[in-house]
Amino acid sequence: MKDNTTYQPEWINYPPPPGSYRSIFKYGDPAGFKHPSKQMLDLLKKELDLTDEDLRLKNNLGLDIIKADYPVGLTRKQVQDITKIIGTDNVSIGTYERIKYSFGKTLEEAWQLRNKKTGLITDLVVHPASKEQIADLVAYCNENKIPIYTYGGGTSVTLGIRPVKGGVTVVLSTHMNRIVELNEKNQTVRVQAGMLGPDFEHQLNYAPAYYGTKSAYTCGHFPQSFEYSTVGGWFVTLGSGQDSSYYGDAADNVLAVEVITPAGTIKTIDFPAAATGPDILDIFKGSEGAFGIVVELVWKIHKYMPGRNRQYFSFIFPSWETAVEATREISQGEFGMPSVMRISDQDETKFAFNLYGIDKPVINKLLLLKGLTAGNRSLFIGTANGHKSFARNIKKQVKRIAKKYKALYITGYPTRKWEKGRFEDPYLREDVMDLGLQIDTLETSVRWDNIFEVHKRVKDFVKRHPHTLVMSHASHFYKNGTNLYFIFITKFDNIDKYIQFHRSIIDIIVKSGGSPSHHHGIGRMMTPWLEQYLGTEQMNVLRALKKHFDPNNIMNPGVLGL
Amino acid sequence: MKDNTTYQPEWINYPPPPGSYRSIFKYGDPAGFKHPSKQMLDLLKKELDLTDEDLRLKNNLGLDIIKADYPVGLTRKQVQDITKIIGTDNVSIGTYERIKYSFGKTLEEAWQLRNKKTGLITDLVVHPASKEQIADLVAYCNENKIPIYTYGGGTSVTLGIRPVKGGVTVVLSTHMNRIVELNEKNQTVRVQAGMLGPDFEHQLNYAPAYYGTKSAYTCGHFPQSFEYSTVGGWFVTLGSGQDSSYYGDAADNVLAVEVITPAGTIKTIDFPAAATGPDILDIFKGSEGAFGIVVELVWKIHKYMPGRNRQYFSFIFPSWETAVEATREISQGEFGMPSVMRISDQDETKFAFNLYGIDKPVINKLLLLKGLTAGNRSLFIGTANGHKSFARNIKKQVKRIAKKYKALYITGYPTRKWEKGRFEDPYLREDVMDLGLQIDTLETSVRWDNIFEVHKRVKDFVKRHPHTLVMSHASHFYKNGTNLYFIFITKFDNIDKYIQFHRSIIDIIVKSGGSPSHHHGIGRMMTPWLEQYLGTEQMNVLRALKKHFDPNNIMNPGVLGL
Repeated sequence: MKDNTTYQPEWINYPPPPGSYRSIFKYGDPAGFKHPSKQMLDLLKKELDLTDEDLRLKNNLGLDIIKADYPVGLTRKQVQDITKIIGTDNVSIGTYERIKYSFGKTLEEAWQLRNKKTGLITDLVVHPASKEQIADLVAYCNENKIPIYTYGGGTSVTLGIRPVKGGVTVVLSTHMNRIVELNEKNQTVRVQAGMLGPDFEHQLNYAPAYYGTKSAYTCGHFPQSFEYSTVGGWFVTLGSGQDSSYYGDAADNVLAVEVITPAGTIKTIDFPAAATGPDILDIFKGSEGAFGIVVELVWKIHKYMPGRNRQYFSFIFPSWETAVEATREISQGEFGMPSVMRISDQDETKFAFNLYGIDKPVINKLLLLKGLTAGNRSLFIGTANGHKSFARNIKKQVKRIAKKYKALYITGYPTRKWEKGRFEDPYLREDVMDLGLQIDTLETSVRWDNIFEVHKRVKDFVKRHPHTLVMSHASHFYKNGTNLYFIFITKFDNIDKYIQFHRSIIDIIVKSGGSPSHHHGIGRMMTPWLEQYLGTEQMNVLRALKKHFDPNNIMNPGVLGL
Repeated sequence: MKDNTTYQPEWINYPPPPGSYRSIFKYGDPAGFKHPSKQMLDLLKKELDLTDEDLRLKNNLGLDIIKADYPVGLTRKQVQDITKIIGTDNVSIGTYERIKYSFGKTLEEAWQLRNKKTGLITDLVVHPASKEQIADLVAYCNENKIPIYTYGGGTSVTLGIRPVKGGVTVVLSTHMNRIVELNEKNQTVRVQAGMLGPDFEHQLNYAPAYYGTKSAYTCGHFPQSFEYSTVGGWFVTLGSGQDSSYYGDAADNVLAVEVITPAGTIKTIDFPAAATGPDILDIFKGSEGAFGIVVELVWKIHKYMPGRNRQYFSFIFPSWETAVEATREISQGEFGMPSVMRISDQDETKFAFNLYGIDKPVINKLLLLKGLTAGNRSLFIGTANGHKSFARNIKKQVKRIAKKYKALYITGYPTRKWEKGRFEDPYLREDVMDLGLQIDTLETSVRWDNIFEVHKRVKDFVKRHPHTLVMSHASHFYKNGTNLYFIFITKFDNIDKYIQFHRSIIDIIVKSGGSPSHHHGIGRMMTPWLEQYLGTEQMNVLRALKKHFDPNNIMNPGVLGL
């Protein structure tokens, strides 16, 4: 029993009460949970310098039923007109629905809801069933200067869907969630923007049954939010999935889009390449709803070769530095790219040993024997996809390069373990917040020549604060650079102080030479850094596009600083 | 001697006289020639239904010295002001230079020059030495509403550099032709836009000597115009090189650009990916000088692994249809892409047998034995680059797929032969035109599901005309489609009728479902089809961008229909 002294939280282990604040901010499946392990709590206690008292559940668990009433900022006629367009069954004016669709998944939004603070919420929630309804709605709102926000799966971590000026929230995942056409010859699907990841991937994996195709397919895009994010959301936020090093980022998989804007409907052409002037498709990559609503996408699909074709490999590198050098050599090696590649810095490696079952005495002994000491070592996990001959050769080349950097091959087991739980980690957040702690992430683009500088400056900065823990990994690899992902755990009692701290990390990221985001997007959270990052001339181009598509500034106003 | 009856042209075999019309329209090295072979002439005679008389040199050879005088459409003060910005040594007001830099390489421009017709020419030619000079020039011209045309290597085949409103032509290849920085860690170079292909590739291949790098590099972009086109030109016209199936199209290799526009200078950021809104870089892909002058580019370089690493392979397929199916299977095979892939239809195969030395009795016997008859068979040539293990596996997989379609492997010899002469084919045009015939090309993007339709309709259309020959190949492969390249030889005595015929081919391409261009660009030639192809909403976006960057319409006016 001694082992359990710091392991007392009575985790919430039941779905949030219907109508409660928690039912809105809780991530994912209402009945899904992932509790911090005892080892993780021990580590937290040590690293954050906490007492047992700190590790008890706090009061703001958000279990209360929402009772507040909010006035609707639209006229009765406007509500009637919009209801006429969308249909009675698909319009909600109730408080709960309006709050639910006003919130994304940032830590601060969860904090607000835990404290029953909602701020301004949307006036009306609509669930359109067709492109035609959306076109009519956009035209109507443009005429009446009513703001429109688009809600896909609701996993924005950048305040990207917040209805800051009131208006109408358009939910795409309710009805516009189907594959419209699968073209096996072209290896493309025409898919509605509101389709969620699992359904999309399932239908592609089982395409022979669903669509009578000869082969099975995969979408190739697996962000951590996969289970609760939409195809359209992936595209407009420039998302990047965990297999992106091989399959490319979300937008790389999009051949064409159909977008409804106040300036009309645009349907780009689905050639893989054409020298017909700047591709208008590109302008909607990362547009985050500022120009219009992406309603359909032509997505490139890839042959799905599961089972024995996929190769798994994991290594322990002597240091973060050697792991970075090795992944650079792999990314520039001209033998094709692994699908997943992720290298953890020393601090994340400590956590990962626990999370992915590497923390075994026998492994530890072997590692120490090889001189791979706990304070320095770096975990590398990877997979290779594609044709068997291709995937096997990648594993062989990766092993060759890893060996050169004196890494120890530790089989594919840790990668498989990671893969199995990879969509569950976000569930940890609710538990950590129940303790009155915060777990949050920020990420940034780096080049090979500034990865160490950005990594060091950000970590040094966070570590200077009391009761903080920061770990980092690189994932999403390119010939010319990668991304850095920071996970930090803190203990703040005040949301404003937390936000100040959080924003100061973004500031140090940008000042160190990183981008404000690699794959989370800008939303309304990163906007203060966008102009200094892009420069005024580039911001002016975005403003000119905004003015063209949305002269009345009704489309997701404020997002991207527009 | 009987064999030689149709083989009498006394080809021009000496450099054009300095100052002559021919010195302007002749492609490439003034002392470079590639004469049609006897077999090619025999084939032409047969296919175009020509007499021996038709195969004699005609009169309009363009050997006369240019004597015409053209008034300068700028005021004396304007010329002085511009000279002050650029420097006396780098400004030309002489007629010859002004004509020279007013012409690209379309067939109709060569025809006009052969007939001493120049139309409107540029008023002033400047050869700037720095970004600062260009910024000053653009600001000055914007203030004074003087049109600016950018001349890279001058190989436009779309009338893209024609100074249709007079003004100033800015030549970038004279001084702005260097690598500014090579960053081996990031595998990027910062290169000035006016650098020509061979110099660029040479410095990368010999980077260890020039830049002290550990590895040798390649730019990966080898269009047929390689020797006389510039890095900036490749990017702004959305060019595609012969190795594009592996290295990507030109713009895929560009990480960032610096562009000088009337609305200011834009320098985009060189991260391989960032979720920071629409990437302004993309807007300049295919911008063809309409928004500003691209002065510097960050180009992704690739490890150069010459010699034994490169794999060569060639096949004869039983038909065009099976060759298309096989290349589709390769492109969708998930084992990495070959570098070069090119499949010739039946008509081009006939020519290619002669051009690439396959036309041997022993080979023919073998082919007939295998049932590969002359009227149907299709030539496939290919290479694979990259790491040895990767390239070898690709060759293995390609052979596996080719065998499935009953193709005959005919070693790497035809591919090597093609590779050796691949930049020389454009030299044929002058000889063909000296005979009073025309050889010209058009190309288009296709998807796998419409390649046969576009191919058939275009060929049928051309073949309906008397004295014409048309052949086609597919190259530049993608998972979701490819491009179709048409080469046609005709006998027109009248340029207007020729142009009418040429434009009617573009029309049939677009009506059949192809794009107005896959990699030549739009220029001023394809503009009549751009709006019907893109639709008014997309054209309006281009117009809005034009208005933002260039409100006075001075940047390459008319290009892209803007």
